[in-house]
Amino acid sequence: MPSKYTELRKKAIKRTRKQLKQSMYKRDHLIVQVVRSIDEIDKTANLLTEKLKDWYSVYFPELERKTRSIEEYVNLVADVGYKEKMPGSEDSVGADLTKEDVEQVRSFARSIKGLLNERQVISEYLETLVSQEAPNLNSLLGPGLTARLISLAGSLERLAEMPSSTIQVLGAEKALFAHLRKKGVPSPKHGVIFSYPEVRGSKKKVRGKIARRLAGKIAIAAKVDYFKGEFIGDKLKQELEKEIKELK
Amino acid sequence: MPSKYTELRKKAIKRTRKQLKQSMYKRDHLIVQVVRSIDEIDKTANLLTEKLKDWYSVYFPELERKTRSIEEYVNLVADVGYKEKMPGSEDSVGADLTKEDVEQVRSFARSIKGLLNERQVISEYLETLVSQEAPNLNSLLGPGLTARLISLAGSLERLAEMPSSTIQVLGAEKALFAHLRKKGVPSPKHGVIFSYPEVRGSKKKVRGKIARRLAGKIAIAAKVDYFKGEFIGDKLKQELEKEIKELK
Repeated sequence: MPSKYTELRKKAIKRTRKQLKQSMYKRDHLIVQVVRSIDEIDKTANLLTEKLKDWYSVYFPELERKTRSIEEYVNLVADVGYKEKMPGSEDSVGADLTKEDVEQVRSFARSIKGLLNERQVISEYLETLVSQEAPNLNSLLGPGLTARLISLAGSLERLAEMPSSTIQVLGAEKALFAHLRKKGVPSPKHGVIFSYPEVRGSKKKVRGKIARRLAGKIAIAAKVDYFKGEFIGDKLKQELEKEIKELK
Repeated sequence: MPSKYTELRKKAIKRTRKQLKQSMYKRDHLIVQVVRSIDEIDKTANLLTEKLKDWYSVYFPELERKTRSIEEYVNLVADVGYKEKMPGSEDSVGADLTKEDVEQVRSFARSIKGLLNERQVISEYLETLVSQEAPNLNSLLGPGLTARLISLAGSLERLAEMPSSTIQVLGAEKALFAHLRKKGVPSPKHGVIFSYPEVRGSKKKVRGKIARRLAGKIAIAAKVDYFKGEFIGDKLKQELEKEIKELK
């Protein structure tokens, strides 16, 4: 009966695939990938702008000192391009180039500009994604810190499984392992949650205590978000604010 | 007489700037910058595509195995996007995503596609640049190898100043220094000029000899190009072909 066996096998594979689909890929996994893609765009836009600067400096080396950010530099080359149209070009020691030469380096600048625009579009999408997949964390921490925590944990599921003491030092692994390895090195008080205004903005003495309270609320919010429970983000935030007030 | 002094100083600065302009920046410097920019685009397009693959794999992880190049992958996501429109998606274990989710990852893919297109445009420009600034080298070696040699030397000027023995091993610095440092390590026979068809395609025994002849012609062509002499590229090529024939 090979045909019956084949049929059975097919059914079994189909069922396994379905189970795999349900267990492996969830929409919150997008958050991690999107955060990593934004980081990569930041890195690559920087690398490409370094090359753009070297290239454009054959023509107008003085522009680099006149600009303060990579965006400003890239936009000037892409949108203006010709040094005669920029201030301070009269005394330039750069080479006089043909129109085609200038248009080519402008085209390269426009590509980098496109990448920076894409970064903006993806960042806005990330905010939507976070507000939909992790509404409680989002209300407590805002989209940036929520996305960063989920990305560091690897997934919303893993964040939901973490004790608050782990969440408190997430992103400070280096300091944590130094503490565990060497005598006399204090344990870190906070990882990325340092960027939370009430942690960063408080006196050093209470910072660790506030970070502990905050990590406690994050642990709850992550669990509620993962199991798609009711929205309690505003309640958590109120409780936290009260606890912080008592500490100060 | 501070005003007279000031005037004099201004004139001196102006003159120095002019001299600096004539000595520092020449059009052939663009070749080096353009080669480095193309290399950087290759590197960053690869890095970004890795992130795209991780991101798109939440939705359709099976696509990666079905494609052979990063271009193919990027184009499929950018131009087709929806897995239902691609073969082999019926059994996908990837998550079902919303239209907005798919459109966002497509938008990221389009950005990478734009970067790859830009690479193509810049490569064509590089060929024009090389044929104009180094016509003799270009006729002898073609645009790709000419650009690579000028970039490795740092400028056409530096290439023109190099003895042919240095040109022969340009791009094989690692092997050269190993030879100089350790006993028994043979000296490299060729650097990037290995990619010249008559070097790469010849028997190992004569390769070194051919590379030496080729490097000799390159040294001449580079000098003629740098000092903007007459075109002798075809003559050099004929001589080289004759010399190679005698070696075989």
